[in-house]
Amino acid sequence: MALKTGKEYVASIEALELEANIMGKTEGELTAHPLVAPSLRAVAATYDCAHADESRALFRAYSPLIKGEVNRFTHLHQSAQDLMDKVRMQRHCGNVTACCFQRCVGMDAANAVFSTTYECDQAHGTDYHRRFRDYWSLAQREDLVVDGAMTDPKGDRGKRPSEQSDPDLYLRVVERWRDGVVVRGAKFHQTGMVNSHEIIVMPTAAMRAGEEDWAICFAVPTNAKGVRHIYGRQASDTRKLEGTLDVGNPIFGGQEVLTVFEDTFVPNERIFLDGEIDQSGKLVERFAAYHRQSYGGCKVGVGDVLIGASALIARMNGVAGASHIRDKLVEMIHLNETLFACGIACSTLGHATAAGNCEVDLLLANVCKLNVTRFPYEIARLATDIAGGLLGTLPSARDLDDPLVGPYIKKYLAAADGVDAVDRAKVLRLIENLVAGAGAVAYLIESMHGAGSPMAQRIMVARQGDLDGKIALVKRLLNIQ
Amino acid sequence: MALKTGKEYVASIEALELEANIMGKTEGELTAHPLVAPSLRAVAATYDCAHADESRALFRAYSPLIKGEVNRFTHLHQSAQDLMDKVRMQRHCGNVTACCFQRCVGMDAANAVFSTTYECDQAHGTDYHRRFRDYWSLAQREDLVVDGAMTDPKGDRGKRPSEQSDPDLYLRVVERWRDGVVVRGAKFHQTGMVNSHEIIVMPTAAMRAGEEDWAICFAVPTNAKGVRHIYGRQASDTRKLEGTLDVGNPIFGGQEVLTVFEDTFVPNERIFLDGEIDQSGKLVERFAAYHRQSYGGCKVGVGDVLIGASALIARMNGVAGASHIRDKLVEMIHLNETLFACGIACSTLGHATAAGNCEVDLLLANVCKLNVTRFPYEIARLATDIAGGLLGTLPSARDLDDPLVGPYIKKYLAAADGVDAVDRAKVLRLIENLVAGAGAVAYLIESMHGAGSPMAQRIMVARQGDLDGKIALVKRLLNIQ
Amino acid sequence: MALKTGKEYVASIEALELEANIMGKTEGELTAHPLVAPSLRAVAATYDCAHADESRALFRAYSPLIKGEVNRFTHLHQSAQDLMDKVRMQRHCGNVTACCFQRCVGMDAANAVFSTTYECDQAHGTDYHRRFRDYWSLAQREDLVVDGAMTDPKGDRGKRPSEQSDPDLYLRVVERWRDGVVVRGAKFHQTGMVNSHEIIVMPTAAMRAGEEDWAICFAVPTNAKGVRHIYGRQASDTRKLEGTLDVGNPIFGGQEVLTVFEDTFVPNERIFLDGEIDQSGKLVERFAAYHRQSYGGCKVGVGDVLIGASALIARMNGVAGASHIRDKLVEMIHLNETLFACGIACSTLGHATAAGNCEVDLLLANVCKLNVTRFPYEIARLATDIAGGLLGTLPSARDLDDPLVGPYIKKYLAAADGVDAVDRAKVLRLIENLVAGAGAVAYLIESMHGAGSPMAQRIMVARQGDLDGKIALVKRLLNIQ
Amino acid sequence: MALKTGKEYVASIEALELEANIMGKTEGELTAHPLVAPSLRAVAATYDCAHADESRALFRAYSPLIKGEVNRFTHLHQSAQDLMDKVRMQRHCGNVTACCFQRCVGMDAANAVFSTTYECDQAHGTDYHRRFRDYWSLAQREDLVVDGAMTDPKGDRGKRPSEQSDPDLYLRVVERWRDGVVVRGAKFHQTGMVNSHEIIVMPTAAMRAGEEDWAICFAVPTNAKGVRHIYGRQASDTRKLEGTLDVGNPIFGGQEVLTVFEDTFVPNERIFLDGEIDQSGKLVERFAAYHRQSYGGCKVGVGDVLIGASALIARMNGVAGASHIRDKLVEMIHLNETLFACGIACSTLGHATAAGNCEVDLLLANVCKLNVTRFPYEIARLATDIAGGLLGTLPSARDLDDPLVGPYIKKYLAAADGVDAVDRAKVLRLIENLVAGAGAVAYLIESMHGAGSPMAQRIMVARQGDLDGKIALVKRLLNIQ
Repeated sequence: MALKTGKEYVASIEALELEANIMGKTEGELTAHPLVAPSLRAVAATYDCAHADESRALFRAYSPLIKGEVNRFTHLHQSAQDLMDKVRMQRHCGNVTACCFQRCVGMDAANAVFSTTYECDQAHGTDYHRRFRDYWSLAQREDLVVDGAMTDPKGDRGKRPSEQSDPDLYLRVVERWRDGVVVRGAKFHQTGMVNSHEIIVMPTAAMRAGEEDWAICFAVPTNAKGVRHIYGRQASDTRKLEGTLDVGNPIFGGQEVLTVFEDTFVPNERIFLDGEIDQSGKLVERFAAYHRQSYGGCKVGVGDVLIGASALIARMNGVAGASHIRDKLVEMIHLNETLFACGIACSTLGHATAAGNCEVDLLLANVCKLNVTRFPYEIARLATDIAGGLLGTLPSARDLDDPLVGPYIKKYLAAADGVDAVDRAKVLRLIENLVAGAGAVAYLIESMHGAGSPMAQRIMVARQGDLDGKIALVKRLLNIQ
Repeated sequence: MALKTGKEYVASIEALELEANIMGKTEGELTAHPLVAPSLRAVAATYDCAHADESRALFRAYSPLIKGEVNRFTHLHQSAQDLMDKVRMQRHCGNVTACCFQRCVGMDAANAVFSTTYECDQAHGTDYHRRFRDYWSLAQREDLVVDGAMTDPKGDRGKRPSEQSDPDLYLRVVERWRDGVVVRGAKFHQTGMVNSHEIIVMPTAAMRAGEEDWAICFAVPTNAKGVRHIYGRQASDTRKLEGTLDVGNPIFGGQEVLTVFEDTFVPNERIFLDGEIDQSGKLVERFAAYHRQSYGGCKVGVGDVLIGASALIARMNGVAGASHIRDKLVEMIHLNETLFACGIACSTLGHATAAGNCEVDLLLANVCKLNVTRFPYEIARLATDIAGGLLGTLPSARDLDDPLVGPYIKKYLAAADGVDAVDRAKVLRLIENLVAGAGAVAYLIESMHGAGSPMAQRIMVARQGDLDGKIALVKRLLNIQ
Repeated sequence: MALKTGKEYVASIEALELEANIMGKTEGELTAHPLVAPSLRAVAATYDCAHADESRALFRAYSPLIKGEVNRFTHLHQSAQDLMDKVRMQRHCGNVTACCFQRCVGMDAANAVFSTTYECDQAHGTDYHRRFRDYWSLAQREDLVVDGAMTDPKGDRGKRPSEQSDPDLYLRVVERWRDGVVVRGAKFHQTGMVNSHEIIVMPTAAMRAGEEDWAICFAVPTNAKGVRHIYGRQASDTRKLEGTLDVGNPIFGGQEVLTVFEDTFVPNERIFLDGEIDQSGKLVERFAAYHRQSYGGCKVGVGDVLIGASALIARMNGVAGASHIRDKLVEMIHLNETLFACGIACSTLGHATAAGNCEVDLLLANVCKLNVTRFPYEIARLATDIAGGLLGTLPSARDLDDPLVGPYIKKYLAAADGVDAVDRAKVLRLIENLVAGAGAVAYLIESMHGAGSPMAQRIMVARQGDLDGKIALVKRLLNIQ
Repeated sequence: MALKTGKEYVASIEALELEANIMGKTEGELTAHPLVAPSLRAVAATYDCAHADESRALFRAYSPLIKGEVNRFTHLHQSAQDLMDKVRMQRHCGNVTACCFQRCVGMDAANAVFSTTYECDQAHGTDYHRRFRDYWSLAQREDLVVDGAMTDPKGDRGKRPSEQSDPDLYLRVVERWRDGVVVRGAKFHQTGMVNSHEIIVMPTAAMRAGEEDWAICFAVPTNAKGVRHIYGRQASDTRKLEGTLDVGNPIFGGQEVLTVFEDTFVPNERIFLDGEIDQSGKLVERFAAYHRQSYGGCKVGVGDVLIGASALIARMNGVAGASHIRDKLVEMIHLNETLFACGIACSTLGHATAAGNCEVDLLLANVCKLNVTRFPYEIARLATDIAGGLLGTLPSARDLDDPLVGPYIKKYLAAADGVDAVDRAKVLRLIENLVAGAGAVAYLIESMHGAGSPMAQRIMVARQGDLDGKIALVKRLLNIQ
């Protein structure tokens, strides 16, 4: 089956007839909804890039699973080179969309579930790996978008799942039938959910004895019965409704959804873990590591755009040659490339799993993400510095078009000769979008919390950092025991 | 005359019948406009605080100019204690409003014009100081809000005012009559302009020989003929139109305006500098220094609220006791208090001017502001860390109220026992407001560019930092010449 | 009695006939010892500055205690102005000596003991305050150097004093006689100890019930029976023995001593706390706060010299005009002045104690010191950047003087025209001294740990930061309870 | 020929009968000199590691040049894997020696000269590549240490080589004979020079027309006639003469030398560039890039030791479980691994040169080094924090051994149960060595300036960062031209 184009992808999502609650209304025809459409276009870009000349090779891979070519976003990585190509592909998507293109999470979930089910079968004699291979063969053949759903609401962080006043605060199995299970709960922060065909649900943490009902991994379609989507807000989101350049990013945007599982039935063939608590922590850790690697690609790609916008506004302002401006741009590039280096390094030092796909270096993937919780903030700060105060004071695009005051705004927005005032406004709005608007949700807030908050990375760095080995070096050098 | 209350202030602004262009329309009845009203309330708070028991003493001062009590926002500082009280008053206003309360710029302009006109008269035999004393006596007696207007559009930054393709890109005198002058130009980034009674216009930079027409300082009412106001946009500004808790700051907000002077007449009595180019740089420097001091108060006050909101959400999440949360809160306090220390230090080391009012230490005022271009960003980053991913994914308040999905949202927003889900949403929205919404315009973008961009502060630090004196210390110690 | 000169001070120290163990030997005639003499000269500078025209006024204060003029280093601060003058005096000493001048700790101890003994007497009916007034009157009249000794060895940090395998790991009373007590223990990190006339010993932490024997504060002469001094090493310390410019700082240096109390008798008149455990924490906290303020003066003064040296070497290298060099110098000044601002702010916001002397603002004093644990490191890093690689590769001064190779070194050390190669070497050695030599012990290591390690400041910031007050601001704004 | 052991290497250096001026004396028998021997042992470790079981595979490579196995320190990298193995080898050496092991510079020079001579021959019809292959075959077969010499004194940085008052301030050809050339000049900062068999001299910058005499690249033995070595000082260097644990690093150390070329003859066969100015800049850039990559290995290796020492002293102090200590250790690991990630990433993205060896990614190699100018400073600051104040105040090892005071020191150095006081002193001295002693020269000063100062990296980042490509992304997204 040929890889889908963006257009075909959109049609396939339309066919799902998904509904979501948005700003107080239950909405259908989501693909045409102005708050949703930009995010759909961003996902569509991941399809179109697999057809564009400049990116075709990078976005395609040969899958041994289906013995055929797949969009790399559905690929099970076969080598360190694959892992690096994943990062480069993500950077490219960030370059094209300047936002979150939402398709990484399913790719990362699939690679984690693939190796974990294999090991679970080895340990427990279960049949999950075969099921997952079948399921994922479908995802590859149909070129699907799959949302990976991990984050439970968690209620009181000081309590275990079973200790919560409401046991649903961690998603769980509430009934077991012969042909499947019924689950209840919710997943927060679901990136691109209503642009997805399928959902893979994973547990949110390592479960312990007595918490078997919470150790559940499965897949359902996004339009499954008993699955309800509630759209998340973003800063400046309603600018997408205004139809002017004030939106900042004129084409693309992100999407975050709260998805509720209201006694949803899951057939056995779609269950990939059910009660094997010893596998749950590993699954979380692996998914997290793949996803922390991802940020070394996607955020770098968005960073490129923000750096480009900063350089462009500096040129428009006639200050591109000022040494402090050049120095700030160098710093932005330096920080952005440091993130990229981390994404590449955790890839090239990846290793094969028992199941045969390739896994990132856990330590460096966590180091990568931990830097992502810092450097985009400094890059955004420097962009704000270069862009100037208009970022917070520019009149609206409607005033710019107004026959009465528009000419005044244009007169006084004039900068270096030959710079069009409207173009200048566009660049300012793009920067605003990324540092204090809808784009900042992806570039800053998601950089902090996506794939786990900084403390989650620190815990992994502590665990993987081999302090004992380092102490041994000292003892050897100093000849102490 | 008694100091105005907030209510009296609002009435006085209504009486001006100001108009502004907002989002493509010419609007009157601004005080009732939902985009404007929150900013008006923030200014009104500066009046009400002068009547509230807890702050009355701090907000009042005895003015030798009118031999009576004034709101400190109109005060000409008589001592280092006055300068410190100014900073403490600003911190208090930030505490109350969690936004920009817009009244500092006129206070800072007045103190700079007061001393500069005095020195100009000494040097040039002009009559500006007497005029300004008369003018400011009125401002004190009437308890007015005065906007200080400095930032010209500046066009091509590589060119002087007279070299611009359009000479109006720096505001200038275009005609001189016997009883006054006619000015043309514009001022960007006018904080609180349509909440003000009066405008003091100042030159934006040190002018040189041949640039006398641009060396103009004067005052006009905000509703003067030929003065046109175009409202600036802020991130998430239209949430103010929605009428829900999604607005973040439920009461207060900021205001930024582009004000155009379209051949506006200024009578002689309101002209405080006209062509005395040798005074223009000093006026800019002094105003900037006072205003850079101000940021050591107002942003600290907003920072207190952001720290409080972070601490509160941590409690609600049940993680207030986690060592890394405590550590981040300590870091936020530390950074915020460092800014306060700078605001206080440049005040206490202030000195009397020849005109008799008191001026901040120039070096430390610039150091203060330069820190303000950094630390709020880190405080906001840490707040984002503590608040969690819901900052970018929380469904809308309308969904929270929706009978169908509202209960789901509330069920899954449950956190530590006893925490109300709506309260939790309120706190998240306040934090969102400050780190990626309308509040971030004041707390982050304005912290970068208000009172001059970082490079402006660096230039002053270089000039005031006494490198030669430091080199002399080394030469003495090393006995080299 | 007239204030001592540096020369008189040195004579008075010689008269004590102190001994210390240094590098494996018991040494007398310490004032002539080449490792000790530079540190003695640094203390002597605190005397000479009280006579020099440029600093005389700053270094003298009127003491109500003895109704006469004293060296400010023995002053009990009477006002916020006194606290600020203290900081300015310390900056001046740092400017003159470029090292630790060792006399602050006794001044800070005295001010803390003064107010604590007063309050102890109020609470317990003791007679400590009168004793201390008598004692300190002597210190003022005789213009003494007093070492404040606080840091106990502490052994296993996880255990209380009484739980240690060796109870002496916290200094304690081992015997009680009618006319005094006998103490045993040690104090680490004793700055300037063998340049001091007297020692005030304080407990190192808040003591609890059952730990009365460790809650002891007293004074003895440095040459008291049973007091033993062991000299601490510093990086590159033996360069002081070489007699060349390689020493870096040609005149001054610091001093750190381990002082052991080997069953030392303390007469009752010199005991200022003995078992009143409720006072011990307060005493520690106050001393620490005064001493944390001190760092906002002394380290700033040393920073000035390092900035000057960096500017001078840049000039010598012919790169003073490079924009990145200018920018780094601005950054160094900015950071250094931020420290100064903190020192000044915690002073001006000081308050009177019940005993009548003036105490710094506790929150800001801790903020001050916490910044001191950071910014000198960045200043030193930037100095290293500007100075260039010769900082780590320059041949020895003896080679520079060598008739064979000296001319080669001078030939190739030539820089901008008119720069003497030996002068260039001197400046490089001074920078080396401050970033990686004996001076770095004071400028970097002591900046980290002196007056308590960063965690101690963070604990105080948490305690003083009023999180509850900040949360209340949020609740009021959001109308939540 | 078999790879040399460390012992054989030492013998081969002894055979050279090198002399150097050290601390005012001309010294022979350098291998036995206590200031030199530690640095010789560090180089010897690069030989022994090629024989040790744990590292043998990593330290050996197959060289197509001599069709045999070589020590990787003499290898011409054949693949990205080789480049990564180089970095891992360097990290291992840092782990073993905790200092600069001095052998990287020749490896990096060889790889740069190899590809540049090839391209020079293509462009100019010269015979340099064949000469260099012959020369380097010898280096591989004999398993030699080659010093790469680049940094000229440069005199007045504002002037070109030919404009200097003394033209020798850049090393140059002063005479040309039929069989070779005579050179004069000097090279600063020569790492490991008197532990090397050979020197490759390269120009220090891109030369221009008229500067052909300065565009010279060649090799000579370290004991060639007319080559003079003057030993550089390091902080605390003379502790190596004391013979106690105060030395910090008990076995290893670094070496920096000023080498003067006093009319040294170079035979034609050893000349690899002579006047081809168009190749000079490329040679500098390539050598710099390889050497900037190196720092992503060696400094990481030293960092591991410093982290281990910090963890160990925390355990000894009984505070390893404190959350702030754990957090600081995590931060140190995070920063250190970020450097490693950069070293790995610029390797794996390397590319083949026309000559057939493999070259690092220029952008990421510079990003790597720029991070090295920052993170080791923060790691050292955190180590200082964890280690405590004894870092600057611990008495000398001779006092520790002293029968009189030694027991006191040991008594009061007691920490957690079972910790030997002497071991604790050893660990403190090792940390001191690395943050403020001889080791800090390599870990901090050399991290700043080795392979070029930060500004050199920033210039390369600006050049390689593709700002135009980033601007193009923005223009496409915003549809502006």
